[in-house]
Amino acid sequence: FPSKLPNVGTTIFTVMSALAAEHKAVNLGQGFPDFECAPELVNAVTAAMQAGHNQYPPMTGVPALREAVARKIEALHARAYNPNTEITITAGATQAIITAILAIVHEGDEVIVLDPCYDSYVPNIELAGGKAVRVPLTPGTFRPDFAKISAAITPRTRAIIINSPHNPSATIWTAEEMRQLEDLLAPTDILLISDEVYEHMVFDGAEHESAARFPGLAARAFIVSSFGKTFHVTGWKVGTVAAPAALTAEFRKVHQFNVFTVNTPVQHGLAAYLQDPTPYLQLPAFYQAKRDLFREGLAGSRFKLLPSTGSYFQCVDISAISDLNEADFCQWLTREVGVAAIPLSAFYGDGFDQRVVRFCFAKKDETLRAALERLRKL
Amino acid sequence: FPSKLPNVGTTIFTVMSALAAEHKAVNLGQGFPDFECAPELVNAVTAAMQAGHNQYPPMTGVPALREAVARKIEALHARAYNPNTEITITAGATQAIITAILAIVHEGDEVIVLDPCYDSYVPNIELAGGKAVRVPLTPGTFRPDFAKISAAITPRTRAIIINSPHNPSATIWTAEEMRQLEDLLAPTDILLISDEVYEHMVFDGAEHESAARFPGLAARAFIVSSFGKTFHVTGWKVGTVAAPAALTAEFRKVHQFNVFTVNTPVQHGLAAYLQDPTPYLQLPAFYQAKRDLFREGLAGSRFKLLPSTGSYFQCVDISAISDLNEADFCQWLTREVGVAAIPLSAFYGDGFDQRVVRFCFAKKDETLRAALERLRKL
Ligand SMILES: CSCCC(=O)C(=O)O
Ligand SMILES: CSCCC(=O)C(=O)O
Repeated sequence: FPSKLPNVGTTIFTVMSALAAEHKAVNLGQGFPDFECAPELVNAVTAAMQAGHNQYPPMTGVPALREAVARKIEALHARAYNPNTEITITAGATQAIITAILAIVHEGDEVIVLDPCYDSYVPNIELAGGKAVRVPLTPGTFRPDFAKISAAITPRTRAIIINSPHNPSATIWTAEEMRQLEDLLAPTDILLISDEVYEHMVFDGAEHESAARFPGLAARAFIVSSFGKTFHVTGWKVGTVAAPAALTAEFRKVHQFNVFTVNTPVQHGLAAYLQDPTPYLQLPAFYQAKRDLFREGLAGSRFKLLPSTGSYFQCVDISAISDLNEADFCQWLTREVGVAAIPLSAFYGDGFDQRVVRFCFAKKDETLRAALERLRKL
Repeated sequence: FPSKLPNVGTTIFTVMSALAAEHKAVNLGQGFPDFECAPELVNAVTAAMQAGHNQYPPMTGVPALREAVARKIEALHARAYNPNTEITITAGATQAIITAILAIVHEGDEVIVLDPCYDSYVPNIELAGGKAVRVPLTPGTFRPDFAKISAAITPRTRAIIINSPHNPSATIWTAEEMRQLEDLLAPTDILLISDEVYEHMVFDGAEHESAARFPGLAARAFIVSSFGKTFHVTGWKVGTVAAPAALTAEFRKVHQFNVFTVNTPVQHGLAAYLQDPTPYLQLPAFYQAKRDLFREGLAGSRFKLLPSTGSYFQCVDISAISDLNEADFCQWLTREVGVAAIPLSAFYGDGFDQRVVRFCFAKKDETLRAALERLRKL
């Protein structure tokens, strides 16, 4: 039978993690922490299981968790979402994004994505019968190019997907850029999927400019968050979508027939743990220290450091080190140097190669030091 | 924006559970246990969290769990699946089914479903751009009608979905019927999705005739299982798909861009708990006792009991009790009698009403007795 996704292989993250394991490399490729989550969070989930919260929760999510999420958004971004009609708990951010896409994209609709982008977006759009229209971010700076975005809009444009803090480039959108997007979309019916999974990792005093802060964006947006990223539990697979009631209603129609609902004890555990905002309020400082450790370790090396203002990634230009293309360089670095990284070309539709690779610094300091020791030899 | 699923509302299970809660009715509607899972299972998940199994597992599932699943299928059905290339762990059976459908159904393809059927199948097919072709099971007996199925096959038929033990009718397919399906499909390329989530609930010494037992079916089948059903943890949302390597490869392409992967500590906990087959081997006797308690309680009432040979459901004919249609009867029963049930008409495309409603007996004996006390007054 014919493939639905003939051009899709195994994701680069799986490929590089497997290669790292095979060569006992320090894995700074796939984005996940190698340290533990808070024991209080584990205890809260255990308590929920022991209290018997093991059967189906409501399809939309455990009420206490939806309420906690709404309170958090209101505290951080001064926008009130109704937890009953505007917040849905998902089986991670990836499931949130495909569900939003399946809910809104009709056969032949176009969805604008900004290259480089996360590798699930385009196959998600294609599975919905839509067409992904790839618009590049400005090479080198990764800033949105509004002239190019504007030129890509057609009567078939159903939605645009943005992602800030940005994976893989570690840039964040400014308030001014969010307003420019708001102005650009104002005369249109184009919907917005705003992937904000790294929302709590912004550095040097910068603010995360959530789409929730811009009324003209929030009114048309599915805003996607990830507890896995925020609480160091990428394997728990719980995220959220905040969207106006009319969008949420369509989202839930698909959600109930995709996963139906999400792990009950984890939802109860997260609801309890979210009562205290301290853990996520401390996250910028926590990750900024790791970013600085990693950057300082590479200072004076032939890796050229790009800015990292958000996310848990650090991009580096490799052109002073190697003539290899990004993908071959990452293979070589993993096999020969013992450090895994991700080539940025994997995030581009056309494999655009700007000699930049991505490291993940969501690692124990000792892991980062072990990697730095190897990288500094180059 | 136009809805992708204009005819879809909230699932009947959510509606009836909400109504049951509102009226403090005994909830025999939505299928889930009201008793606890084994404490060993909770402890195994806790141990996994405490051991630090909280980051992304492999996309395909934790190896120990895939291996345990392959061993279980081989022990029960004498078919060897390769755990690396033929078993995938999913975020529940619903996610398994939509993922299989998205992986194989192209725009305009037809998929045969047998009415009455679970309410996610048809929207799943439509979201994939396909067309659901509804073929009724024989009214009254719910046996597959091979003449009708055969007549529904066209050159566009991509797949057929079967479900045994069957929700909602509580019937099971016989080996002879499975062989008839095998013969019918033999000259075709039609794929099979076999929803076997109630596999361990078969009564009176009957055997669950998994598609894995029939080579001509297994070679074309996605076989879907549910740990939630088997281990009394419907809220944990973990299932599996067993399928030949070529089918699994396409399945995983979609899976990695739908949920990417499934809760890590729960997978580790299940892998440990599955080492001992006793819990699932005892399940038939455990549920048969509950079925018998419930049936004996209704014997002599004006509810006419239909056979229940599998699943945790009991269907009853209500025509001697009420002139209401099934849906109105269930509303009335919940509000006025204080027992929630599910109308079979909700499982039919055309709302076919044969005056039969479904009770779930996956409940504590005291819950069943409380419901029986109310039902016997009718
Ligand atoms: C879902 S695996 C990839 C994790 C991640 O988001 C990344 O490394 O970019
Ligand atoms: C996913 S909620 C419904 C549970 C169930 O399978 C049923 O009641 O039929």
